[in-house]
Amino acid sequence: LAVDQQTSSLATSQRSVLEPSTAYPLWPPLTEGDPVHSTAQMQYPLEVAFDLAAGSAIGAFTAGHAGRMSDWQPLLPPLAAGIDLGAGNTPLIDGSPVAARLGLDTELYLKDESQNPTWSHKDRLNTCTVSAAVLCAAAGVVVASSGNHGASAAAISARAGLRCIVLAPAGAPPAIYDFLRAYGASVIAVPAAARWVLTRQIVSRLGFHPVSNLTPSAHTGHPFGPEGYKTIAYECFLQLGRRVPGAVLVPCGYGELLFGVWKGFTELKELGLARSVPRMFAAEPAARAPLHHALAAGLDAARVAATATAAASIGTTVGGYRGVRAVQGSGGAAIAVSEQAMRQAQAALGRSGLWQELSGAAGLGALVALGNDQPGGPVVCILTSSGFKDRGLPGRPPDELPGTWAGVADRLRADGIL
Amino acid sequence: LAVDQQTSSLATSQRSVLEPSTAYPLWPPLTEGDPVHSTAQMQYPLEVAFDLAAGSAIGAFTAGHAGRMSDWQPLLPPLAAGIDLGAGNTPLIDGSPVAARLGLDTELYLKDESQNPTWSHKDRLNTCTVSAAVLCAAAGVVVASSGNHGASAAAISARAGLRCIVLAPAGAPPAIYDFLRAYGASVIAVPAAARWVLTRQIVSRLGFHPVSNLTPSAHTGHPFGPEGYKTIAYECFLQLGRRVPGAVLVPCGYGELLFGVWKGFTELKELGLARSVPRMFAAEPAARAPLHHALAAGLDAARVAATATAAASIGTTVGGYRGVRAVQGSGGAAIAVSEQAMRQAQAALGRSGLWQELSGAAGLGALVALGNDQPGGPVVCILTSSGFKDRGLPGRPPDELPGTWAGVADRLRADGIL
Repeated sequence: LAVDQQTSSLATSQRSVLEPSTAYPLWPPLTEGDPVHSTAQMQYPLEVAFDLAAGSAIGAFTAGHAGRMSDWQPLLPPLAAGIDLGAGNTPLIDGSPVAARLGLDTELYLKDESQNPTWSHKDRLNTCTVSAAVLCAAAGVVVASSGNHGASAAAISARAGLRCIVLAPAGAPPAIYDFLRAYGASVIAVPAAARWVLTRQIVSRLGFHPVSNLTPSAHTGHPFGPEGYKTIAYECFLQLGRRVPGAVLVPCGYGELLFGVWKGFTELKELGLARSVPRMFAAEPAARAPLHHALAAGLDAARVAATATAAASIGTTVGGYRGVRAVQGSGGAAIAVSEQAMRQAQAALGRSGLWQELSGAAGLGALVALGNDQPGGPVVCILTSSGFKDRGLPGRPPDELPGTWAGVADRLRADGIL
Repeated sequence: LAVDQQTSSLATSQRSVLEPSTAYPLWPPLTEGDPVHSTAQMQYPLEVAFDLAAGSAIGAFTAGHAGRMSDWQPLLPPLAAGIDLGAGNTPLIDGSPVAARLGLDTELYLKDESQNPTWSHKDRLNTCTVSAAVLCAAAGVVVASSGNHGASAAAISARAGLRCIVLAPAGAPPAIYDFLRAYGASVIAVPAAARWVLTRQIVSRLGFHPVSNLTPSAHTGHPFGPEGYKTIAYECFLQLGRRVPGAVLVPCGYGELLFGVWKGFTELKELGLARSVPRMFAAEPAARAPLHHALAAGLDAARVAATATAAASIGTTVGGYRGVRAVQGSGGAAIAVSEQAMRQAQAALGRSGLWQELSGAAGLGALVALGNDQPGGPVVCILTSSGFKDRGLPGRPPDELPGTWAGVADRLRADGIL
């Protein structure tokens, strides 16, 4: 292993999310999940364990501000040198104009993850997963994705000097292919059903490191990835003046973001910096919502039918145990959000100056869906990705008007300005 | 005027950029430029003067870090309350992989302005201009633009609760219209020649505040806007460990960004925080390059033919005095960058994980164009906007392959991976 011995990471091992007493060496990352507790029917994820008792664990919090992922190195898996594209350090925006627009009497904050290097939260995850690829001396990175995850993996792989293969289904938003190609990725469109088998072949034949999921019965993902999302919790804590929110609402596909943010807050409590952990609310499209169904049925993960949803980035049909763990561990809930509530949230954000893809607005959509049952305390909605990523773009350009005042005035009347 | 009397802004007046001894009251913003020195043939811009001797002027630098525009309030025109969408605080990225890819032996840093609320540098400018609209109690905001400037003005107006009219030419990249509409802007496509007359009518008939240019013979823009760009200089200074770069290379249309960044560095020197000011290099598409031509001809601004360029965001045909002032005042130059050099820079950035629109890569393109004549000292290239803004998207999606290894292997061979 080409692990940098100078790293200040306090990571000690991989451990089972189901049974934290079951630990494995930190290297290599076990990208097929927990080998002891997984079965053919249910596959369980791993996470990274840290020596939180070490003095450097609270160093970044003592400094009072951390601007880069590497500033959190003690609490992250080892990061590769030079991988920094400026991920993290996103603003926490006062959400009161948005709450007012939606008729919510909630102390609302919006964490805008579209202000990341590839304009989504995924850059935090891939800073960790691509670092793992570098430190394993992998020949490259392979990822199955047609959206934010693939683009982020491609960008950070490019930064790290690693080739990246993106297995994408046909039918992604067309601009996504330009996006992926700009990073020099090899973009291969194959039927969705073939992607996992091909990922495994690229891993075994080419020595590439997989940064997306390999386990078909339940999502386990990369054990190092969700650790990157912990930095969202750390930043929110500092940005709220060393306060912990009462609730965090998170767009939820496989539950990695939900779990990572929750884990970050649990570490703040373990470090003695905070006395509570927020309730974690998963926002899933009602058309799918595998976590909602798993919790309702008392399962560790569920599989759901591929009912149509426009929330492409979180419209997963297979859940994973991380989501169950974060919701149950925090006293939260998984909210099945209607397409209408997501659209309402997306529109309210746009009308307040924040353009999110539909999935990116799902956390706020869940807050709308909670209606009069609003959670107490400061509430943080995580906005995950730019509106440019959405399907259904571009809309129709406006008709060109003659440049006369009369014609313009008619249009302004139609728009309610005159 | 509804100016917040509690503001801590040290702004004292507007003053002529041509003759700084000529001052005007701070309010209202003189959006048609310098009334004393302008003529029908040449219109001159205004800037904002500050009481730099006040103790609070260096407060944000003493704190060691500023994360929001409002943290710089002493050195900015008065900002409206609640206008913060998280503009600024963008990363300064180690550019050594990009320099190596381009064969440059330069200490290179990249300031990624695509990590802003509307994914371009314009959010810094419009935080100031839309604040001016709010504090003037304007009925709304009007902007003539088909790209970054209009979208940013629309977003920040939405945040401020002001209606926004965007006068756009037909033929912008189609996704730009979705972008503008998401913010609730009234998007009106009119022939380019009609835009300035209509802007004036919207100002005079509706009481809207103009945040784009009103002067046809030379660009003067909004007097408060470039002040927002000073924060790029402040951030770079802190991010470089309180060092000043030897040179800054800036994509240049009307020269507002160039001037604002230069002014920020001159203030650092006036405040005694720095001993030098970087050489400012304007990067213009060679097909247009009004600043390059003005400097070559000894003019205060030039007008050039509308020769074709793909760098839509900076392909202006009319220059302005701010660019002349910043280049001459700093010992810099205006570089006419070929389309090829811009494409080379854009590709090198993408292959290193940073996807910029073509205009956004022009500063790096200028560094390429300088060849063996590289400037000394740390060099900062400002990257202005996301690749999603470019024209010519989307490209062709890849053909779907059957999910067999043989088919995938052929593609990987074509991509140089196998």
